[in-house]
Amino acid sequence: MQTIVTVSELRQTLTQARRAGGRVGFVPTMGYLHDGHLALVAASRAQCEVTVVSIFVNPTQFGPNEDLSTYPRDFLRDETLCRDAGVTVLFAPDAQEVYPSQFETYVESGELAKPLCGAFRPGHFRGVATVVCKLFNMVQPDVAFFGQKDFQQCAVVRRMAIDLNLPIEIITVPTVREPDGLAMSSRNRYLSEEERRRALAISRGLLAAVDEFRSGERDVEKLVAIAKRHLEVVDRLQYLELVDGDTLKAAHSPLRRTAALCAAAYVGSTRLIDNVMLALPSP
Amino acid sequence: MQTIVTVSELRQTLTQARRAGGRVGFVPTMGYLHDGHLALVAASRAQCEVTVVSIFVNPTQFGPNEDLSTYPRDFLRDETLCRDAGVTVLFAPDAQEVYPSQFETYVESGELAKPLCGAFRPGHFRGVATVVCKLFNMVQPDVAFFGQKDFQQCAVVRRMAIDLNLPIEIITVPTVREPDGLAMSSRNRYLSEEERRRALAISRGLLAAVDEFRSGERDVEKLVAIAKRHLEVVDRLQYLELVDGDTLKAAHSPLRRTAALCAAAYVGSTRLIDNVMLALPSP
Repeated sequence: MQTIVTVSELRQTLTQARRAGGRVGFVPTMGYLHDGHLALVAASRAQCEVTVVSIFVNPTQFGPNEDLSTYPRDFLRDETLCRDAGVTVLFAPDAQEVYPSQFETYVESGELAKPLCGAFRPGHFRGVATVVCKLFNMVQPDVAFFGQKDFQQCAVVRRMAIDLNLPIEIITVPTVREPDGLAMSSRNRYLSEEERRRALAISRGLLAAVDEFRSGERDVEKLVAIAKRHLEVVDRLQYLELVDGDTLKAAHSPLRRTAALCAAAYVGSTRLIDNVMLALPSP
Repeated sequence: MQTIVTVSELRQTLTQARRAGGRVGFVPTMGYLHDGHLALVAASRAQCEVTVVSIFVNPTQFGPNEDLSTYPRDFLRDETLCRDAGVTVLFAPDAQEVYPSQFETYVESGELAKPLCGAFRPGHFRGVATVVCKLFNMVQPDVAFFGQKDFQQCAVVRRMAIDLNLPIEIITVPTVREPDGLAMSSRNRYLSEEERRRALAISRGLLAAVDEFRSGERDVEKLVAIAKRHLEVVDRLQYLELVDGDTLKAAHSPLRRTAALCAAAYVGSTRLIDNVMLALPSP
């Protein structure tokens, strides 16, 4: 595995790999890797000769009162995890390499970026779309892998790639959960033991709704209510919404198209998100 | 020459050309080609094995009261001009191919897009940056060529390519002028004979300022005043500004860095722009 910190060296290395006919898979991350990230790496390795992982805690996707400065970092551990996972290139640029001083061009998403997290984190998806567009242009992968835990991010990135004609296939990989169900997230490390127990309510609530859905429930209010009951133990429920799986607009009863039940909640001072898909065949 | 109207066919054709080791040059246009466009094609042919010209009248860069519907079009003539000029691929997508129905992601520029035309054409450079980013991703050229007549567009596109890490060299080609000095533009065809005569005041004014600059004049107000005197015959002077050649911010006396004297004026109902560079060695 090669660890690279500049765009020019990255380009040089990948040009050689591409000439050798290798398909390039890309897994963009903010580091502090967990099994969710490693599932993305495994998905890439399964279909690409070259797997590039980026680690970059992107300042433009954090709001002024968010956790940019405290976001967990452990580069040496990440490097070992990547090497052991068979990553070809670990790309870890610093902020100056990604955002040189005169930087002023942003990628702005539309309707998909407005609900859910977009409503509570102004500018977040602008930062996400911008940095992902930049990383895509740096790596020029054939395929890029994103975790379904960041459901809205997947939708925004997929739309961005289509809208800006990036010749990159976007693959969403199912959320990896702890044995008890909590969605894996680098932010889980913020949780105290007591908070960790209460955090479980999020996945419990969502998965309870999935059970009801599988038993035939198609009523939006009822499905949301089932999840909500569990979520009473969190410190602040930011949103709990059942949205159309494609448009991210509020779903209507009875459900006839695939929907996503999405939640964001604070447990202590930690903001956690999770979601489940309620899958239906296209009408 | 191949004329192509879909992105997928374009990609297929250019992948083959690239495999053959050819350098790809790209000239994006809105059609109704003139010698200015052909100078861009010549510049591309001088350094690239493959030259792609696009013709697309981009709706997102026109304001609601601008000339989108009347913008001059003559595709068959353009096609002949391109063939005769040695263009390899003429790419002429329709609006649906470029902006499918769910399109919602835009490229937003910053400070460079605010003064000059940006101040009078809200959304114009968003449309320009977005379509150029899209076309860049469709064509994936090694080099792209733009005319200096659209000075601010050159600055915005150059910044966008850097900011979004597009691996594309941007080359600005000097403005081509009619024998009497009028900058070539597809919009010149809107002018009546009488308007055509008065339109000449724009280039006359700018070039008079260049003469004074060459004679040693470094005072911003004086240089602008010289140009302004000529411009009294236009129907409405939208702006006449001497700006820093890199930042596009107002230039200060005495000039110590390369500046651009830029003008936009209505002659009859036709809006024309032009500019000249007042070149100085970097301090």
